[in-house]
Amino acid sequence: MIFSNLNLDDKTPLYMQIRDYLEDMISKGLIADKSKLPSTRELSEILNVSRNSVISTYEELKSQGLLYSLPGKGTFVNSSNLAPITPWMFDWTSIENDYMAGANEMDIVKSEVPWTSDTISFKSISPDGELFDVEELKKAFLNRISLEGHKLLNYGYAQGYKPLIDYLLQYMRDKGVDTEGKDILITNGFTEAFDLILSSFTEKGDIVICENPTHNTSIKMMKLHGLEILGADVCRGEMDFDMLKEIIESNKKIKFAYITPSYHNPTGMVMSPENRYRYYNIMKKYGIPIIEDGFNEELLYSSTHIFPIASLDNKNNGVLYIGSFSKILFPGLRIGWILADKGVVSRLESVKRCKNIHTSSLDQAILYEYLNQDSFGKYVKKIRKVYGEKFNCAYKAVEKYIPNEYILGDGGLHLFIKLPEIDARELLEECHKQNVIFMPGDLFFIDNAGYDTLRLGFSRLETEDIEKGIKIIGECANRLLLHGL
Amino acid sequence: MIFSNLNLDDKTPLYMQIRDYLEDMISKGLIADKSKLPSTRELSEILNVSRNSVISTYEELKSQGLLYSLPGKGTFVNSSNLAPITPWMFDWTSIENDYMAGANEMDIVKSEVPWTSDTISFKSISPDGELFDVEELKKAFLNRISLEGHKLLNYGYAQGYKPLIDYLLQYMRDKGVDTEGKDILITNGFTEAFDLILSSFTEKGDIVICENPTHNTSIKMMKLHGLEILGADVCRGEMDFDMLKEIIESNKKIKFAYITPSYHNPTGMVMSPENRYRYYNIMKKYGIPIIEDGFNEELLYSSTHIFPIASLDNKNNGVLYIGSFSKILFPGLRIGWILADKGVVSRLESVKRCKNIHTSSLDQAILYEYLNQDSFGKYVKKIRKVYGEKFNCAYKAVEKYIPNEYILGDGGLHLFIKLPEIDARELLEECHKQNVIFMPGDLFFIDNAGYDTLRLGFSRLETEDIEKGIKIIGECANRLLLHGL
Repeated sequence: MIFSNLNLDDKTPLYMQIRDYLEDMISKGLIADKSKLPSTRELSEILNVSRNSVISTYEELKSQGLLYSLPGKGTFVNSSNLAPITPWMFDWTSIENDYMAGANEMDIVKSEVPWTSDTISFKSISPDGELFDVEELKKAFLNRISLEGHKLLNYGYAQGYKPLIDYLLQYMRDKGVDTEGKDILITNGFTEAFDLILSSFTEKGDIVICENPTHNTSIKMMKLHGLEILGADVCRGEMDFDMLKEIIESNKKIKFAYITPSYHNPTGMVMSPENRYRYYNIMKKYGIPIIEDGFNEELLYSSTHIFPIASLDNKNNGVLYIGSFSKILFPGLRIGWILADKGVVSRLESVKRCKNIHTSSLDQAILYEYLNQDSFGKYVKKIRKVYGEKFNCAYKAVEKYIPNEYILGDGGLHLFIKLPEIDARELLEECHKQNVIFMPGDLFFIDNAGYDTLRLGFSRLETEDIEKGIKIIGECANRLLLHGL
Repeated sequence: MIFSNLNLDDKTPLYMQIRDYLEDMISKGLIADKSKLPSTRELSEILNVSRNSVISTYEELKSQGLLYSLPGKGTFVNSSNLAPITPWMFDWTSIENDYMAGANEMDIVKSEVPWTSDTISFKSISPDGELFDVEELKKAFLNRISLEGHKLLNYGYAQGYKPLIDYLLQYMRDKGVDTEGKDILITNGFTEAFDLILSSFTEKGDIVICENPTHNTSIKMMKLHGLEILGADVCRGEMDFDMLKEIIESNKKIKFAYITPSYHNPTGMVMSPENRYRYYNIMKKYGIPIIEDGFNEELLYSSTHIFPIASLDNKNNGVLYIGSFSKILFPGLRIGWILADKGVVSRLESVKRCKNIHTSSLDQAILYEYLNQDSFGKYVKKIRKVYGEKFNCAYKAVEKYIPNEYILGDGGLHLFIKLPEIDARELLEECHKQNVIFMPGDLFFIDNAGYDTLRLGFSRLETEDIEKGIKIIGECANRLLLHGL
């Protein structure tokens, strides 16, 4: 192909025509530096000219320094001596839009304090991989691939892998949700599900009402979509319903109500059935659709399962439920789902197709097979026990060591602490010197409040480190209380 | 937890308090229809009341029809007789934004003609799964999982799986790209890569210049981002550079130039090195950054590899290269990448984090391991041979059977045909009656042109069906030519 544009004529000696052509190609960068050329014999055959012509061409280009030979290896291009071409340094930041700029500005990963492996980190609320049943996952993979073979590796459906959709519909029914008239769209985790919904239904300036504080990724995403975020206080252990109503009544058009009723992030609270009912009916009354973030629902250690708000929406269609196993199972697989009105799912499917066609068929199939094995139930029992112990250990240690106004957390993988007038960022700085880090609570507030709060994730720590780390946080907090800084 | 809000007092008989509480919970839907209640013995222990009180409660609720017993199974809720609650049917389409509406309107999957398994479909340009090395993929999975275990199943990095990034950087170097100052972001296929770029750098009303016709998914996505699309004709076998320059000179601010130089969709054309050089330098001169869609680069049957435009951008930073194996390998895994200036990749990484955190770690690891096996090279040889034969078969059959002004296609998995004044949609209707379907070419044009063109994808068909199907298309075309319709 390098020679496809070389048309030889009778006017000039052949070796000169070939030489000029190669010189031109090399100087334009169309043949890369150090790339190998055909041998003189090969090229003479390709061009249907005498081998001597090609030898002359190569010799002359060598003398110009544009080619070089390596004995036994062949002839290569050397374009390093060519006059430099005008550089083109495009200023990409100059054309960034607000979304790109905001995504970077609000990217907390980029502003994280550096830490080493001997740090006790309470930042993560992702599951402890050591607990994963890797052997069972292997089995799931091998079973599925032997059943379906290459079909799992080719394009699938935007809505998702049918057996997984059916499994999740049943899973939702087991949570008390009537799935009649509802359907499921598979997404790349909660984050994509939320992004799909925001991308499909919101406009810049729309008002969204949520809990304050709430999941910082959700805050970031809503801000990036240009939404105005209003929050009802949940800092005192339950939602402030008076505040919620006041917000609703003083703002005419609220686009969505976003809520995490179970294992709320960052407070770890689980909303009571009564309050779920109350919340649902307020939104129903005012006609405000609900986005329910169905976070970690398997991880309530102290009592039985609570129905999601979506289960109050049976026969209705006011709730978009976002589900995910990422806090208990294989977050690296990036699988979540949206349960919603059939019509909505069908519309969202087209949006999904515009974003990334579909979620990995292989991952969906593996997850489906894994969930169907008996081992999943056993796994949930196991992690409830392990995380339950860590939860109790962390709770007791916080009570014992950290001066606090209150501790929130009904389960899940984290606790939330209100300090007595201590700046959590100052505290973090002190703790960091002693290799202990955590999430300052202000990250989760929509209104720059919460300077005196923090979130402790304990899922990936051993109980000794939980106790040791919390003790250090407590000591630092007490020093700050005594001496200020 | 169902009973956590029941506070018993001394003023009313206990059985009545429990009854009222349960009645309230059931009528509010807080205990789902058909759900099982604790046995009378269990409940008396939970509430610390006499068993008789609970028996009385259950009896009374049974007589009201709110509970029922199944012998040997227990006591269950029956809320089916309750007065219906006011329904809430939210009108979701009323709050859809333009993106959602457009994504549905332009979703060609939804307007596809129905077809059965005996249809010869030339619509697909996805790879033939029968060719996949499923056994080698299994090996890749087992190797990687035994090396890295649960780490592959937990959260990874937004930029991607490091070994895969390094592999792809080398892969790009092998294509002649100098990767100094460049980096790679892993995405969920080409579609996500393109969406990330559009989401990060464009505003509504921005002008983009591309080939006309071009990839219909790209057209859809650019339209959804509100871009104004201008196209330089490529219908005659190569790009119309006069038209390209005229467009550039008469439009002040062009945000991007989008181009598919290899196996262009739908024409199947491969741009010559000379034209790549020319194109690159025009964009460089006018300061218009290039988005290069590096489609199917392994599938040029007739000759050697051609460098991507990105390889002309060495030392510069004007090209965003989007890569993907989806047309040759495992599209179900949804893995693609963006090669760009290091700074751009770092900025895009934050956007990726807002969209779906990261691409499946497991899939990235499997693909990495697979690509590293010797078998990948063998696989590429095999598919070049198989698809090359199909290509030749299709080309010859079109020449023989279908009346045409010209046929385009230099390799890849499809051909593009310009008919002599036949409406390809009418032709499709006729062919569909005989169980043959294809892609009408107008889908790929930005200006409603191309009514008399069509794309034939042959990757998933056997050569007999290719010949049979093309013969039928030819017969229908000749009938339309003779008789009109």
